[in-house]
Amino acid sequence: MTDTVSSPVSTARSDDATDPVAILTRLIRCPSVTPAEGGALAALQEILAPLGFAVERPVFSDIDTPDVENLFARAGAAGPHLVFAGHTDVVPPGDQSDWREGPFSAAIVDGELYGRGAVDMKGGIAAFVAAYARQVERAGHPAGQVSLLITGDEEGPAVNGTVKLLDWASARGERFDACVVGEPTNPAAMGDMIKIGRRGSLSAELRITGVQGHVAYPHLADNPLRTLTAIAEALMDEPLDAGSAEFPASNLEITSIDTGNGSVNVIPARARLFFNVRFSDRWTPDSLKVELTRRIEAAAASGRFREGRDAANVEIVWRARPSESFLTRDDALTQALAGAVKAVTGRQPQLSTSGGTSDARFIKDFCPVVEFGLVGKTMHMSNERVPVEDLETLTRIYETFIARWFAAHA
Amino acid sequence: MTDTVSSPVSTARSDDATDPVAILTRLIRCPSVTPAEGGALAALQEILAPLGFAVERPVFSDIDTPDVENLFARAGAAGPHLVFAGHTDVVPPGDQSDWREGPFSAAIVDGELYGRGAVDMKGGIAAFVAAYARQVERAGHPAGQVSLLITGDEEGPAVNGTVKLLDWASARGERFDACVVGEPTNPAAMGDMIKIGRRGSLSAELRITGVQGHVAYPHLADNPLRTLTAIAEALMDEPLDAGSAEFPASNLEITSIDTGNGSVNVIPARARLFFNVRFSDRWTPDSLKVELTRRIEAAAASGRFREGRDAANVEIVWRARPSESFLTRDDALTQALAGAVKAVTGRQPQLSTSGGTSDARFIKDFCPVVEFGLVGKTMHMSNERVPVEDLETLTRIYETFIARWFAAHA
Ligand SMILES: [Zn+2]
Ligand SMILES: [Zn+2]
Repeated sequence: MTDTVSSPVSTARSDDATDPVAILTRLIRCPSVTPAEGGALAALQEILAPLGFAVERPVFSDIDTPDVENLFARAGAAGPHLVFAGHTDVVPPGDQSDWREGPFSAAIVDGELYGRGAVDMKGGIAAFVAAYARQVERAGHPAGQVSLLITGDEEGPAVNGTVKLLDWASARGERFDACVVGEPTNPAAMGDMIKIGRRGSLSAELRITGVQGHVAYPHLADNPLRTLTAIAEALMDEPLDAGSAEFPASNLEITSIDTGNGSVNVIPARARLFFNVRFSDRWTPDSLKVELTRRIEAAAASGRFREGRDAANVEIVWRARPSESFLTRDDALTQALAGAVKAVTGRQPQLSTSGGTSDARFIKDFCPVVEFGLVGKTMHMSNERVPVEDLETLTRIYETFIARWFAAHA
Repeated sequence: MTDTVSSPVSTARSDDATDPVAILTRLIRCPSVTPAEGGALAALQEILAPLGFAVERPVFSDIDTPDVENLFARAGAAGPHLVFAGHTDVVPPGDQSDWREGPFSAAIVDGELYGRGAVDMKGGIAAFVAAYARQVERAGHPAGQVSLLITGDEEGPAVNGTVKLLDWASARGERFDACVVGEPTNPAAMGDMIKIGRRGSLSAELRITGVQGHVAYPHLADNPLRTLTAIAEALMDEPLDAGSAEFPASNLEITSIDTGNGSVNVIPARARLFFNVRFSDRWTPDSLKVELTRRIEAAAASGRFREGRDAANVEIVWRARPSESFLTRDDALTQALAGAVKAVTGRQPQLSTSGGTSDARFIKDFCPVVEFGLVGKTMHMSNERVPVEDLETLTRIYETFIARWFAAHA
């Protein structure tokens, strides 16, 4: 069995599209560090074409961001349309000496396949392709359409990726009925968790201006770090909410405070504070901006300033593209996936809206979307790796899901 | 009269040691931006030698700091020893386009002489030299010793300057009975203020370590900026004291907070906070460290951290060379200077311990020290300048002070 393989060289046949280990090995050996294509989409195209997919490789451009290659592949011409979404780009491997096996080696040691992207998320792509190949081998192409919507810009600025790929497909007349995103969703073990929505995300930069001066003459200055401290307190002090039935509590984190004043004798003229909020469905980006602005302005106007001086100037710069929270309400989709997980693993997955954002936030505007993939424990870390057994489990789950979903839409 | 000169070219005779404008013009035209000598000490030597001073130019070195030239000049061989202390180095002029007249031009416009160092403190040196020259012209060398202790390292790291010059002079057997430092001490007008002591100064850097993580998974991270905010509050919240009879209240300023986290999705691993305290005689550096450590540790241990996580690690790095507060208790010295100010300006100067540190903090270990000079309003700014009238006033004050001090020590 594959889970007993311990040689650092994969023994999988490289031409077997039903073997997720073979596909993943080939993908990991393409160094597709975002935004580089690295050969990964070309390899995927070579694997998908013999399976009957029509493959396109649109490249998108924008000012200030690198051009990015993407891939759209469709099998089937009509009928219910199931799309699998994901990305082949990976985060940088970091210091290679931190890796037990090379980050682009795909070496298998003690039943685990090492490499950047093993779980996030070349492994998810490999499992879905193998699942589809097995479905075809077992029962032929399902009664409908199956697509892969794969970007090379999920880990980067996400400008020339899924957003544009969805618009591009939509403009060509593609209509999707349901989507599975193959991001790693399981905290600890296969079957733990399906994501059925995501919290919203809102970021801002505060630019606080005071009056520069010498520390020995504070009455001639106005230290912006006094204002900043008061604002930081006000932002963190009171919880934004206690969560809702489907969402965990909203949470604000201050991610950076920067002054850059190298002189310990000088009261600085200005300071900056950055924060991010992950918020539940109790807020929209706009209602949250109102509440946070209220807290910031109240703190800035509080009695914290030296008498006779104006409050320091606080400018709030909201970051572009906040994301709304969303919840998938397609019970048939959720049940087909949860049922497949239960059938293969024997476990009832938690339906969650926790964790970070993914491209699901864009896809939700086109069709119902759920997320399920590998175990995320090692993602973005050195020695990212996937147990070969997990890869096989995910392949079986996807295969079962494909069969159930098309059965439900027959 | 000199105060009606409006030509940008000085009309003063360059060889007249009794004319402070001529001396200052010559000094300002030497671009002695710290630590460069710029010809300023050489010019001073050429002016002092004909007045009967024995001039020495010791150069001091240290690791990590530039070599610095200094000057020590003594007239008289025995008897009461009055020393005038100061510096010829100046801070950089900044953007020359911000200056109405060149920063090394010494141009006189509308009765004001422009140039970097005009008030801080080539002007003070020029006035003292002219005062001594007038004293000699009027009544001969005073009955005792007069020295100038001039460094080129007051505006820089202050390592190869006054500290070493004092040790060097002491090792040669020089003993001082009183010192006047010629820094600009008057906030608004000549006669406002004599400095008779200074608050102490203590600086520290706090290095706060948390646990890095993704903003979407805050329970897996520990944001050091929560700790930092609590510490900032604790440092600023309660006044350290209300001052004392001779000292203004102690004051703490946070001078920089730095994180350097460029990713709004990431909770940072660490953050730094810098602060400085100017403190009254109610504290020593050691007692203040105890109090601040107590506040920092209490804040770091407060309930601000996520349950089940350790408090973030806080390292306190005290900056080297804190300075004690000090107070000059030589009433004869203070009264000779205050009396001279009153006699020339008609104003009773305030005896103050406010404001920043100066080299007086080093000199106080060798003899009683007071400070009086020009009006500081334009120091360290573009268009630093001195009214020619102020220069003449200071020269008369110094001349009167020299006469009174030696009379009191006869
Ligand atoms: Zn991913
Ligand atoms: Zn100075």
